[in-house]
Amino acid sequence: MRRRHQRRRARPGTSPGTLTIDPGAPKPRIRVTAYRPEKVVEHEVDGVGALRELLGRWPVVWVNVDGLGDEATLRELGELFGMHRLALEDVVNVVQRPKVEPYDEHLFIISRMALAEQHHPTEQVSLVLGENYVLTFQERPGDCFEAVRERIRQGQGKLRRAGPDYLAYALLDAVVDSYFPALEQLHEQLERLEERIFAEPDEQTAAEVQRIKGDLRHLRRAAWPHRDAIGLMLREESRFITPATRVYLRDVVDHAQHVNDLLTTYYELGLDLMNAYLSSVSNRMNEVMKVLTVMAAIFIPLSFLAGIYGMNFDPAASPWNMPELATRYGYPVLLLVMALIGIGLLLYFRRRGWVGRSRTRRRWNKH
Amino acid sequence: MRRRHQRRRARPGTSPGTLTIDPGAPKPRIRVTAYRPEKVVEHEVDGVGALRELLGRWPVVWVNVDGLGDEATLRELGELFGMHRLALEDVVNVVQRPKVEPYDEHLFIISRMALAEQHHPTEQVSLVLGENYVLTFQERPGDCFEAVRERIRQGQGKLRRAGPDYLAYALLDAVVDSYFPALEQLHEQLERLEERIFAEPDEQTAAEVQRIKGDLRHLRRAAWPHRDAIGLMLREESRFITPATRVYLRDVVDHAQHVNDLLTTYYELGLDLMNAYLSSVSNRMNEVMKVLTVMAAIFIPLSFLAGIYGMNFDPAASPWNMPELATRYGYPVLLLVMALIGIGLLLYFRRRGWVGRSRTRRRWNKH
Amino acid sequence: MRRRHQRRRARPGTSPGTLTIDPGAPKPRIRVTAYRPEKVVEHEVDGVGALRELLGRWPVVWVNVDGLGDEATLRELGELFGMHRLALEDVVNVVQRPKVEPYDEHLFIISRMALAEQHHPTEQVSLVLGENYVLTFQERPGDCFEAVRERIRQGQGKLRRAGPDYLAYALLDAVVDSYFPALEQLHEQLERLEERIFAEPDEQTAAEVQRIKGDLRHLRRAAWPHRDAIGLMLREESRFITPATRVYLRDVVDHAQHVNDLLTTYYELGLDLMNAYLSSVSNRMNEVMKVLTVMAAIFIPLSFLAGIYGMNFDPAASPWNMPELATRYGYPVLLLVMALIGIGLLLYFRRRGWVGRSRTRRRWNKH
Amino acid sequence: MRRRHQRRRARPGTSPGTLTIDPGAPKPRIRVTAYRPEKVVEHEVDGVGALRELLGRWPVVWVNVDGLGDEATLRELGELFGMHRLALEDVVNVVQRPKVEPYDEHLFIISRMALAEQHHPTEQVSLVLGENYVLTFQERPGDCFEAVRERIRQGQGKLRRAGPDYLAYALLDAVVDSYFPALEQLHEQLERLEERIFAEPDEQTAAEVQRIKGDLRHLRRAAWPHRDAIGLMLREESRFITPATRVYLRDVVDHAQHVNDLLTTYYELGLDLMNAYLSSVSNRMNEVMKVLTVMAAIFIPLSFLAGIYGMNFDPAASPWNMPELATRYGYPVLLLVMALIGIGLLLYFRRRGWVGRSRTRRRWNKH
Amino acid sequence: MRRRHQRRRARPGTSPGTLTIDPGAPKPRIRVTAYRPEKVVEHEVDGVGALRELLGRWPVVWVNVDGLGDEATLRELGELFGMHRLALEDVVNVVQRPKVEPYDEHLFIISRMALAEQHHPTEQVSLVLGENYVLTFQERPGDCFEAVRERIRQGQGKLRRAGPDYLAYALLDAVVDSYFPALEQLHEQLERLEERIFAEPDEQTAAEVQRIKGDLRHLRRAAWPHRDAIGLMLREESRFITPATRVYLRDVVDHAQHVNDLLTTYYELGLDLMNAYLSSVSNRMNEVMKVLTVMAAIFIPLSFLAGIYGMNFDPAASPWNMPELATRYGYPVLLLVMALIGIGLLLYFRRRGWVGRSRTRRRWNKH
Repeated sequence: MRRRHQRRRARPGTSPGTLTIDPGAPKPRIRVTAYRPEKVVEHEVDGVGALRELLGRWPVVWVNVDGLGDEATLRELGELFGMHRLALEDVVNVVQRPKVEPYDEHLFIISRMALAEQHHPTEQVSLVLGENYVLTFQERPGDCFEAVRERIRQGQGKLRRAGPDYLAYALLDAVVDSYFPALEQLHEQLERLEERIFAEPDEQTAAEVQRIKGDLRHLRRAAWPHRDAIGLMLREESRFITPATRVYLRDVVDHAQHVNDLLTTYYELGLDLMNAYLSSVSNRMNEVMKVLTVMAAIFIPLSFLAGIYGMNFDPAASPWNMPELATRYGYPVLLLVMALIGIGLLLYFRRRGWVGRSRTRRRWNKH
Repeated sequence: MRRRHQRRRARPGTSPGTLTIDPGAPKPRIRVTAYRPEKVVEHEVDGVGALRELLGRWPVVWVNVDGLGDEATLRELGELFGMHRLALEDVVNVVQRPKVEPYDEHLFIISRMALAEQHHPTEQVSLVLGENYVLTFQERPGDCFEAVRERIRQGQGKLRRAGPDYLAYALLDAVVDSYFPALEQLHEQLERLEERIFAEPDEQTAAEVQRIKGDLRHLRRAAWPHRDAIGLMLREESRFITPATRVYLRDVVDHAQHVNDLLTTYYELGLDLMNAYLSSVSNRMNEVMKVLTVMAAIFIPLSFLAGIYGMNFDPAASPWNMPELATRYGYPVLLLVMALIGIGLLLYFRRRGWVGRSRTRRRWNKH
Repeated sequence: MRRRHQRRRARPGTSPGTLTIDPGAPKPRIRVTAYRPEKVVEHEVDGVGALRELLGRWPVVWVNVDGLGDEATLRELGELFGMHRLALEDVVNVVQRPKVEPYDEHLFIISRMALAEQHHPTEQVSLVLGENYVLTFQERPGDCFEAVRERIRQGQGKLRRAGPDYLAYALLDAVVDSYFPALEQLHEQLERLEERIFAEPDEQTAAEVQRIKGDLRHLRRAAWPHRDAIGLMLREESRFITPATRVYLRDVVDHAQHVNDLLTTYYELGLDLMNAYLSSVSNRMNEVMKVLTVMAAIFIPLSFLAGIYGMNFDPAASPWNMPELATRYGYPVLLLVMALIGIGLLLYFRRRGWVGRSRTRRRWNKH
Repeated sequence: MRRRHQRRRARPGTSPGTLTIDPGAPKPRIRVTAYRPEKVVEHEVDGVGALRELLGRWPVVWVNVDGLGDEATLRELGELFGMHRLALEDVVNVVQRPKVEPYDEHLFIISRMALAEQHHPTEQVSLVLGENYVLTFQERPGDCFEAVRERIRQGQGKLRRAGPDYLAYALLDAVVDSYFPALEQLHEQLERLEERIFAEPDEQTAAEVQRIKGDLRHLRRAAWPHRDAIGLMLREESRFITPATRVYLRDVVDHAQHVNDLLTTYYELGLDLMNAYLSSVSNRMNEVMKVLTVMAAIFIPLSFLAGIYGMNFDPAASPWNMPELATRYGYPVLLLVMALIGIGLLLYFRRRGWVGRSRTRRRWNKH
Repeated sequence: MRRRHQRRRARPGTSPGTLTIDPGAPKPRIRVTAYRPEKVVEHEVDGVGALRELLGRWPVVWVNVDGLGDEATLRELGELFGMHRLALEDVVNVVQRPKVEPYDEHLFIISRMALAEQHHPTEQVSLVLGENYVLTFQERPGDCFEAVRERIRQGQGKLRRAGPDYLAYALLDAVVDSYFPALEQLHEQLERLEERIFAEPDEQTAAEVQRIKGDLRHLRRAAWPHRDAIGLMLREESRFITPATRVYLRDVVDHAQHVNDLLTTYYELGLDLMNAYLSSVSNRMNEVMKVLTVMAAIFIPLSFLAGIYGMNFDPAASPWNMPELATRYGYPVLLLVMALIGIGLLLYFRRRGWVGRSRTRRRWNKH
């Protein structure tokens, strides 16, 4: 059915810092946003050279790279910002778990944002926080940062007056918060499935629960490490983060923990639904069996009686041979006996609750 | 069926401190209770201005805000009490997990109280504990603080003689204790369902167990963080909490842990009941199958025999053709053979425990 | 079926220290045991006043209160021994989790002993350890301390020569050890049920496993915190506990951990048995289905054949109409064909293992 | 079926140090092994007195006591080696969990070795490590120390040149390693059962998986604490353990952790097998049901047709009464219709995969 | 079916340092790679003697031993490199869990690499990191180090300029990364099985899921300890690891954690699939049962009616005896009644969703 995008890892044992460029990855598009309280410039640049003159002149320069499909550009960027070869390798190898690594010249942060799209549920966002810049790498265009950009442009709020650490906070906050809509969507689907499971459990319902559980597992693997990574960043007093920003990062840690709580709860709900499904299927089979049993148990003995009197023993040969056949009330008496047996069995099954009652109750539940 | 109230979160990436007011939220109603050992005043105020003159004049001023539906009022309150923009955002965004955050001018505490109502199982209570005031925000009117108010009015006990930290303790205590009646109610429902599961397991029983498990998961997510948050508040020696009150807070931590224990136990009970339900349904199907099998296995061979002697082979055409039909005792002997076969099979099934015994035992269990 | 005794908690928000006396609780009975190495006195006292003169005169005074049904007496006791209002509230509110709380004048310990009785599986024992006294509160008469009393009376062993901390140890030891017989009883029941589950799984077996799992959950909730509470008491160097007694308390921590291990193991066994039960029920249904299928699959085609030759097509009307009926060996040949079909099907089912073999194996297992 | 040996604990509340001798326990047999690098003596002694003269004269004296059935001997030993009353009680009460307790005069270690025998899966080994002796207590003769004894006798390796701490290490190492063969045996049994579960799942298979899971739970309870106990012994710098021996003990901790890993893995395998069993039984029932359904669904309509033409409506009474019976090709046409219906249903069932295909696939799997 | 290679452990209690050589193990093949920035030599040596002259002359000497089948060679190697007897025993006893042990002269590291081969899913790699050498032991030829060798030969990257700690890092990195392809392969198999489970669940599917879960358990046991072991190596500031290499090792810890995350996720997926399988089998049985029930419930009453009119009550004997048989429209009326009953039941079953609808939905799902 649906397949997750398979990324190629480097062969085990290759040199660290080897950039294994995915041939299908989009070419890098570099967008620069430089701002100070009173001004903001925002444009796309063609080469890395154009960045050099901006850096150092503005209090905050945000370089955003969309697409990781060109080794030369990435290497130039890495050189310009003094990135460690392992960090650059992690940027390209987009299957990393979120982490924060302190280097001498900058903080290196890997995070994963949740996407609404089905085939790319999460996308790696690498972030380099330096003295006067923030450098972000994304796998492809389209992200959850539009609101941040708008805040920079508008110049309202604290963002334009604060340093690059506050920008990094704003981006991480957007990344962590991107899980909430994704989770709410899955939760709504699970709640809709829960209703269907008791109304009409079919295989499709089970398959959808399984799919959502798979998505939750995937999101959990991506979201889980954020809390620890950002929490660690808070504890290890980095010179790149001002005390004023720490309060805000504490808030991101809280949100990350909230995401984790929700993931746990929803996954448990998913497990629960599979059990409910199983029990609903069992129940339905029970209903089917009861109908079969009642039908068979009533008519099989009656058919046997009819079979008895359909035998061809010759009454002429012996007075012992089926004398009932020639009695005056043989036929109506037999019909009466059959009716009594049928009604008796029906009453017995009704008393055991196999007929009538259970169905009535179900109908009552719907209203 | 039932749907939990869905709250809108702010879009990921919006500026921290943005107050996303839920248009359906009730307008704020501000109630002030100011007291000293010998006196208490309690009234509703219209605007934030009226608060200004009370603060500082009384040793303890408790400002309670019911309803979060007006941005201006909330901003004014935030300004008056020097609240951080993130704190104010958390007050409005009522899907926070319980936490305690120390600020310079006050302690900021988020907690969730359990409600008896089905569609709003928990409600966020934000609490700001300052030098001489306690400020509480609730989502809507109606809370678990009535007993605390009564204690203030009556002036008995320690409450009126103690500071705002003791009031904060009393409120947190009420919040944590609000889980006990909610949990007891769910526990009673589970125990009632447990009895029904073995007596007459139907789909409604399973659906109710599922619903209660969902409620427990919801309560757990709300209750769980209280213990750690309040425990942290105890460990981080805050200047807003006097040593005398610490003993009391220790007690709240104990109660929070007790709530967590109960949640774990009841959730396990819920899991258990689903298993019991499955096994009960299986068992019942087994009973149904036994009846079908016994009926079919006894009458199918007998019907076959009757079918044999209902065949129309022509005795006149050959002496080999069904000579039994014309024998003297053919019919009664066949009936006897049929009775023997039927009784034999019945005895066999009784020996295997498929007839009689199991039902007797069940009836005995009911008495 | 069985219901656990429901205790009323105080309404959330009531003043700490409010004593919510359960109207059905037995009236307090106060027993005093005072001893020094060479002497012991033991009697019941009517009022709290009588205690005053004993305290301070004996190295160890043990005041045991059975029953919590009278507020005045409890308040007097609390005053005499300088108990904190929260501690006294915890004594009365008998749904506390075990804990140890250091106060200035004494250690306050809450523990729960296991009882053999079904409707009160555990009972709260509150213990106040002071300089020269031990004060214990129990919910009702009857406890696991008889052996300790005997040791005091006999004066053998270390007990009469040691201080009140050693007495407190002896009592806690008795409380923790009270779980072992309760657990062994449940374990024996589980082992008996395990045997029955494979021999004859009926609904009662499942219900009993569920009941025992409920008891284990209850005991676990009561027992679990002992280890941490007493361990904490050991670590926090309290002046009420002499170094000599610490070695003994370490032993109680070990026993508490052992109780926890057993509870975990037995609960897992309980979960296991429910699975075994489900699989056993499935298996039995399989057996039932096989019998039905074999019977039906053999006789249904044979009956069809008999039905064919019971049709009334008129041989006189056409030579094509059932000429077999008038052949010389029609009847015996048909019987032979039927026998061959029946035997063939029987052999086929035997080869698939649906007939005979499985039953033989089961019988062999019993011997 | 099989019952684990039930040991009697002391009644809760009895004096610590009370030795509750199991009347069925074997009488103590004391074996002494004393050695120095160049010499070794090894003999059985009758009374404790004989030990006194050996102690202090040899660098290492190993006193091994097999059997705990005589209080006097144990008390004498306890006195001779200065054992604490609680330690001696733990030696006798052979249901302890592994632990290490430092005393002033020696280290007291309780461990449990795994036995191959079914009714005594583990046996308590208590070990007292003093300045120049090792004292071990076992429940009964027969242990995993034979290889250690051989090493002492042979005098190869480090053992004879090292102190009592190295001997204690060698014994603990033997105890921990005794779990490997026991675990391998259970693992092999589980693997054999796994093969059987898909080939022919019967109740015995399930019961055996349950038994092995029970054994694993028992072993886990016994093995689990070794790692922490010995790890603690390493961390708490005891004067009885030389630095040279610490490296060796680190190895025992590793082995203990390895045992724990294996126990977890095998227990999960056991849980898995029960699920596989359930699914295999379900599958088999499915097969049975398909056969029944195909047989019944094909022949029931055909029998109905035959029944129609077996009715006795009188063609003479009316031309509407079963005129088919007298047509020329009535009988062969009916047979043809029946054959077509039968073949049609068969093809339908074959297309749904209920006939033929599944069986072919299964046969292919076996080769 | 498939059996994992069983290795013989030493008998519990044997002397530490005893080398229990597996008689089937391949003979050791020693390959030496010595390099400095400008040069590299690489050859196979026959005896240990040849190594002596290389050591100390080159900044890095990598001695790789493939095969552990000769005690003398191993002992010589152990002596040459000053290995502890316990370390050497661990090298030979290839069932160790990964660990890092600091010795005075070197770091001793045990790791396990994942192999693609089915019968040897993991292989132990022991690594000794000294001042100027790395010594590695493998169970048999063939490893994941080919890329590392190539990097040494090519002299590109940092490897040839760095010390032995960097080589050790490169090897550990290759070991940890060897799990990724193995895991991806298992994940792909699980995803393929997931699709099959809902399309056509047969026993083989379940057996394969079980097999993959077994492999995941095996890999987990092997992979799990790497993270802690290498993390410990980072924390314990060893003199054999330069600060520059620490950054790289931090990356290996990250990868190890990522492997653990994947193992957890995939194992949960495996558990999930077994549940999905069970529910799919149940569902399919439900379908089968519905067909049986519909067929039986429609035709059994009709056959009974046919049976009634096949009875031989003699109309001549009494006017009450089956007068219908001689009525003008008896036969067609009966056929009509039968048709109405059949159609009525069919409509009833269609309304309950047992006929037609469910199948349509399934077909729709496929497109």
